[in-house]
Amino acid sequence: MFYLIGLGLGDAKDITVKGLEIVKKCDKVLLESYTSILTVGHTVLEEFYGRPIVLADRELCESFIDEFLQEARFSDIALLVVGDPLGATTHSDMLLRAKQLEVKTEIIHNTSIMNAVSCCGLQLYNFGETVSIPFWTETWKPDSFFDKILGNFSRNLHTLCLLDIKVKEPTEESLTKKVRQYMPPKFMSVKEAASQLLGIIKNRQDSDLTEDSLAVGLSRVGAQDQKISAISLKEMSNCDLGPPLHSLVIPARNLHPLEVDYLNQYI
Amino acid sequence: MFYLIGLGLGDAKDITVKGLEIVKKCDKVLLESYTSILTVGHTVLEEFYGRPIVLADRELCESFIDEFLQEARFSDIALLVVGDPLGATTHSDMLLRAKQLEVKTEIIHNTSIMNAVSCCGLQLYNFGETVSIPFWTETWKPDSFFDKILGNFSRNLHTLCLLDIKVKEPTEESLTKKVRQYMPPKFMSVKEAASQLLGIIKNRQDSDLTEDSLAVGLSRVGAQDQKISAISLKEMSNCDLGPPLHSLVIPARNLHPLEVDYLNQYI
Repeated sequence: MFYLIGLGLGDAKDITVKGLEIVKKCDKVLLESYTSILTVGHTVLEEFYGRPIVLADRELCESFIDEFLQEARFSDIALLVVGDPLGATTHSDMLLRAKQLEVKTEIIHNTSIMNAVSCCGLQLYNFGETVSIPFWTETWKPDSFFDKILGNFSRNLHTLCLLDIKVKEPTEESLTKKVRQYMPPKFMSVKEAASQLLGIIKNRQDSDLTEDSLAVGLSRVGAQDQKISAISLKEMSNCDLGPPLHSLVIPARNLHPLEVDYLNQYI
Repeated sequence: MFYLIGLGLGDAKDITVKGLEIVKKCDKVLLESYTSILTVGHTVLEEFYGRPIVLADRELCESFIDEFLQEARFSDIALLVVGDPLGATTHSDMLLRAKQLEVKTEIIHNTSIMNAVSCCGLQLYNFGETVSIPFWTETWKPDSFFDKILGNFSRNLHTLCLLDIKVKEPTEESLTKKVRQYMPPKFMSVKEAASQLLGIIKNRQDSDLTEDSLAVGLSRVGAQDQKISAISLKEMSNCDLGPPLHSLVIPARNLHPLEVDYLNQYI
């Protein structure tokens, strides 16, 4: 059996009782380590489970997963995923591949930022489509996500912005070499995301969103030291919400009174 | 301390390890029993936790919550909520009330249908705003949710439709009497939801959605006997997906190839 197990968002104890039971009985346990991270490191998980964990980076998940799936035909293998296991396309792809190889699968759901974002008081049914904000480079500054935010805003819907993370990304120089070298991990902060948004707004005179528009920054949702800040985009571009992971919400123009009351806690 | 603890969607073991630890140490444990239900009854939960649970219906949650919040100033009270605790407005409202009463609160997140719906293979970031489909009566047939579905469809986004549930609703006759009488619980099935949608489509000649449009029915997501069916709306109006809870998705017109491959398992 191949298990995909969600770990939730905070620490080791955010796994479900069912998930923990499976982890304890499995023959091999992998931790998917490139689409998201937990606030605690994998050694804390190893201690909590009382067993070793194999770190599964992008290369392993995309190129070598077949080996593990083949193993899962005759033994129990678990892949742990931060948040909910089906948040990223990679994992649906794995499940399809498992089906082709006639490997049985089971999914153990958990919370993800897609529903836990409601901790800021904005109601989930008032969210439009979710967008991802990628790190800009000197030569690559895509802004198509901004039109989706504007689209939601014009329909009076909130937008959850997932912020880019770069884990074990090969350096450009090493791409053509035999030995890969990797960049240090990078996690976009609400500060960086707000700055990129302000960069786009500056070039769009007619934008409904301005530097004074409300933004809600969230960091380490589900952890003990979770932070939420409801301030203007301009203020957000100077706001330090501490260690990763961060998420940003652009709220709708007209909020429900209950949403206003709730957000007022974070001004 | 007042704890709001998500139970997830399947059975007793879908609570998180952190959630279970809190339940075991609390002085009193309530189970919110009117916005959603677990596939197992509350007695199974009582056995699993090894302690009694107070059932909290709408009346208790909306009118008598202050008493419990007052108690939570000097003892530990947990309110268990199926899915994620912040899925329903009621619970944000409670947290605000707790703040007014200077009661400390903690939220233990869990999966909800808002992210677990991804088990059908449709990608979460391709969902537009979520809608609720209410039970129609002889004299009350609202259809504003249909325009939201059409709106998402026109922007090539999926729509998650949450289906109505009626638990401990007073009968109309007893509303004016001293002793309330209650109707038996009712949970909308995908069959009923699809029939209501077909009723609307019949009156809208120019609708982009027709009886041949694709619909995805889900039942008991997260439970061992979870069912998913990807068929036309017309077929869905005759489809029995078994016991509650059910959810319905109206997918976007153009799906990602991976979404198509995944949904093909459920045709």
